[in-house]
Amino acid sequence: MNELQNHSRRRMLATTGGLMAFAGLGGVPSLASAQQAAAKDAGAAAAKPLPAYADWKDLDSMIVHSANTIELRRSAFGSGVVTPLDRLFVRNNLNPPSEEIVKDPDAWTVEIKGVGKPRSFTVAELKTLGLESVPVVLQCSGNGRAWFPSEPSGTKWTVGAAGCVIFSGVPVKALLEAVGGIESGMKFMTSLGGEEIPEGLDPKTIMVERSVPVEALDDAILAWEVNGEPLPLAHGGPLRVIIPGYTGVNNVKYVKQIAFTTEQSPAKIQQTGYRFAPLGESGAPIHASIWEMPVKSWITYPSEPDQAVKAGKVQIRGVAMGGMSAASKIEVSVNGGKDWQKAEFVGPDLGPYAWREFVLSATLDAGTHELASRATNADGDVQPEERLENNRGYLNNSWRDHMLAVKVA
Amino acid sequence: MNELQNHSRRRMLATTGGLMAFAGLGGVPSLASAQQAAAKDAGAAAAKPLPAYADWKDLDSMIVHSANTIELRRSAFGSGVVTPLDRLFVRNNLNPPSEEIVKDPDAWTVEIKGVGKPRSFTVAELKTLGLESVPVVLQCSGNGRAWFPSEPSGTKWTVGAAGCVIFSGVPVKALLEAVGGIESGMKFMTSLGGEEIPEGLDPKTIMVERSVPVEALDDAILAWEVNGEPLPLAHGGPLRVIIPGYTGVNNVKYVKQIAFTTEQSPAKIQQTGYRFAPLGESGAPIHASIWEMPVKSWITYPSEPDQAVKAGKVQIRGVAMGGMSAASKIEVSVNGGKDWQKAEFVGPDLGPYAWREFVLSATLDAGTHELASRATNADGDVQPEERLENNRGYLNNSWRDHMLAVKVA
Repeated sequence: MNELQNHSRRRMLATTGGLMAFAGLGGVPSLASAQQAAAKDAGAAAAKPLPAYADWKDLDSMIVHSANTIELRRSAFGSGVVTPLDRLFVRNNLNPPSEEIVKDPDAWTVEIKGVGKPRSFTVAELKTLGLESVPVVLQCSGNGRAWFPSEPSGTKWTVGAAGCVIFSGVPVKALLEAVGGIESGMKFMTSLGGEEIPEGLDPKTIMVERSVPVEALDDAILAWEVNGEPLPLAHGGPLRVIIPGYTGVNNVKYVKQIAFTTEQSPAKIQQTGYRFAPLGESGAPIHASIWEMPVKSWITYPSEPDQAVKAGKVQIRGVAMGGMSAASKIEVSVNGGKDWQKAEFVGPDLGPYAWREFVLSATLDAGTHELASRATNADGDVQPEERLENNRGYLNNSWRDHMLAVKVA
Repeated sequence: MNELQNHSRRRMLATTGGLMAFAGLGGVPSLASAQQAAAKDAGAAAAKPLPAYADWKDLDSMIVHSANTIELRRSAFGSGVVTPLDRLFVRNNLNPPSEEIVKDPDAWTVEIKGVGKPRSFTVAELKTLGLESVPVVLQCSGNGRAWFPSEPSGTKWTVGAAGCVIFSGVPVKALLEAVGGIESGMKFMTSLGGEEIPEGLDPKTIMVERSVPVEALDDAILAWEVNGEPLPLAHGGPLRVIIPGYTGVNNVKYVKQIAFTTEQSPAKIQQTGYRFAPLGESGAPIHASIWEMPVKSWITYPSEPDQAVKAGKVQIRGVAMGGMSAASKIEVSVNGGKDWQKAEFVGPDLGPYAWREFVLSATLDAGTHELASRATNADGDVQPEERLENNRGYLNNSWRDHMLAVKVA
C-alpha cells in the first residue's frame, strides 16, 4: 500500500458523517469520493441562511456552518490575490455587537493603558496620528481542522477560513509615540473586544481579550478600513487590531481597550483557549499560545465537483503564504506528491504577510489526478507533508491534507 | 494678483451652472466657494438613480452623471490602494449589452484574426492558455475635464473617473503563442466591443472598436475577473481587453473580436474620437490618439465639504500614478503650490501600472489651506502645473486644477 493509500485509509478512519457512509461499501474510499461526500456536506450547509450582520456576503460562494462561522468555498477563491469582502470568511467567538456601532465609526472609543500617558482615543483622533495599509492573510487558527483524524471540537473548516485583504489604519507605533511609549516592563499588548457580556456570567469566562508579545507590533495597525471600505461589523468595525502574520483570533474586533501588560490576559480565551495542547490534554498556560501562522498553500483550481475540467492544458492555481515571512517558492504535484514541479507566482507581490497567487501550466490526461502544492518561505520553512497533531485542530498546514483528487474528462 | 488668484479667475470664467452664480456677487470666487458650488452640483447629480446594470454600486459614494457615466466622489476614495468594485466608476460609450451575457461567462466567444492560425475561443478555452493578474489604474480619458476652461463637450468628471483595480485573465502573449503569432506587417491590435448596433445605422459611426499599437501588448491581458470577482457587465464582463497604462476607452468591454491589423480601426471612435486635437479643431487621424496616460496625482483627504477637519495634526492623503512607469516621488503643498514637501508612499506597491497611496503628516492651523500634490514617475516625468489644452478635454493632469481649498476649524 503506497503512501497515498495509507493517507486515504487514515482519512477514512478519521472522518465522520458523509464519509463514513463509504465504509459500508467494503473498500477504501478514494480521495475523489471522499471529496464528493465532503462537497455534499458543504452543499447541505450552504442551505443555511446568512446571518443579518453578514447578509451582504455572496451566498453562492460561502459555506454557512453557523451564524458565526462562514467559510469560502474552495472553488470560489478567484484569482485576484486580494479576497473580495463579499467572499471573506467570518468567524466570531461571541455574537457581534449591535450594527449601531458602525453607523458613526469615527465616534468609537478605545482606551489605551500601560503606556506613558494613558488616555482614550476616538477613531477620529486615531486618524490624525498616522496611516498605513497592510495586506495580510487573515486566517482562522482552525482553518484545515476538518482533516484532523482526532475530530477536535470546533468548526470543520477546510481551506476557506482564510482570505488575503488590505487593512488600513494607524500604525501601533504611531499610537505609542502619541502616548509616551509602552510602560517599562510590559511584555504583551492585551486587546479587549467590544462584545456584550451577558449578565450573570464571569466576564473572564467569555470575553474576547487576547494578548500578543510586544515583539509582534512592528507592523501592527489599528484598522478602520478593509479593502478600501469602512470596516464592516462582520469584520470587526469600527476598529480592529491587526497583527500581521498572526491567526485571526489575535486580531481583536470592535476593540475597546488596549492594555500593555506584564502578563497575558486572564480571559479563558487566552489562558486555556487557543493553546497548542497535545492530543487528549486540555489547553493550559504551559502550552504555546496560537499566535504566528506557519507556511502554507493550497490549490484553488481545479477544485471539483464545482468545476468541470477537460483533458489537455490546464492552469492549476492556488495561493501560497509564508506566515511570518514571504512565500518564496511554490511546487505543485499532479501525482499525489510523488513528483514536484516548480510553479510560478503570478500577480502583484503585496508583501510578506500576504499570499501569492501561483500557477502551474500542466497537461492533464483524462482520469483522476491528485493535485498538491507545497510552499517554502523566505526563512526556509517548507510546508510539511503531515499536520502537527494537537487537541483542538489548530494550524493545519499539511500539504497532504490539502491535496485534491480531480477528475479530468 | 498672484498665480492662485489668476487661477481662480480662470476657473470662474471657465465654469458654468452653480459656479456662475458667484459671478453675480461681484468678486472673484475663492477656490473654496467654487468647490462648495461644485459639491452642490455633485449632490444634485447624486440624486439620480443608479442604472439597473450598476445598481450594486455604493450610491452614497458615487456621482451619477447619467446612466452611462458614474463617478466616485473625491471623499469616498478610501485608503486601501485597491478601489472596491462598488466604488469603481462606470463609463460606457454605448448602452451595455444584455445582462444575459454574464450568466454563463465561460461560453462567451471571441474571434481572433490577423494571426498565424485565426480562430475563435470561448472564455473557457482562454482559461486553459495562461493566467496573470495585473493591477492597473483604470481611468477615463476625460477624467479632470471639469476644469477645462474651454468647456469641452462630454462628462464633467473631476477626479472620480478613475480607480486602481486588479484584473485577471490570459496574457495576450500566451494567446498569440496559441495562434501562431501576429501575421507579418500588422501594427495594431484592434478590438471590437459586443454592444448591439441599432438597425439602420452605419456601424462605423457608432461601434466601439479601438486600436492600440502592438508595442503596447507586453503586459496586456484578456480579463474575466476584476478584484477576484467574475467581471461584471458594468465593467466589461464576460471578457475585457486590458492594456495597462492606457486610458479606459482602449480597454474594450465585452470584446467579441480581436484583429491584428495594418491600419487603425475605421470606426469613428478611433478615427476622429479620442484624438488630442487643438482647441477649435475637430479630432482627425492626424492628431495623436488618446492612448497612454500621463503622470498624475490628487489629494483624496481632506476633501471638504464632505469631511470636517480639526486644526492640528492631519494625515493628508491621496493617490499618485506614473502612467506608463511607476510613480517614484510625491510632493504635497499646503499653500497652493508655493512650497512643496516630500510625502510618503504607504501601503503595498502593486507595480508600475497601479497607483500608490501617499500620506503627508502635516499640522494645519485653523483657516483655509490650499492643498496640492505633484507626482514624478520613474521615467522622470513630473506632473505639470498646467493642463495641456485640447478640444475634448482629455488627459488633464495639472496639479493646479486638482488643488483643493480645505477649511480647517
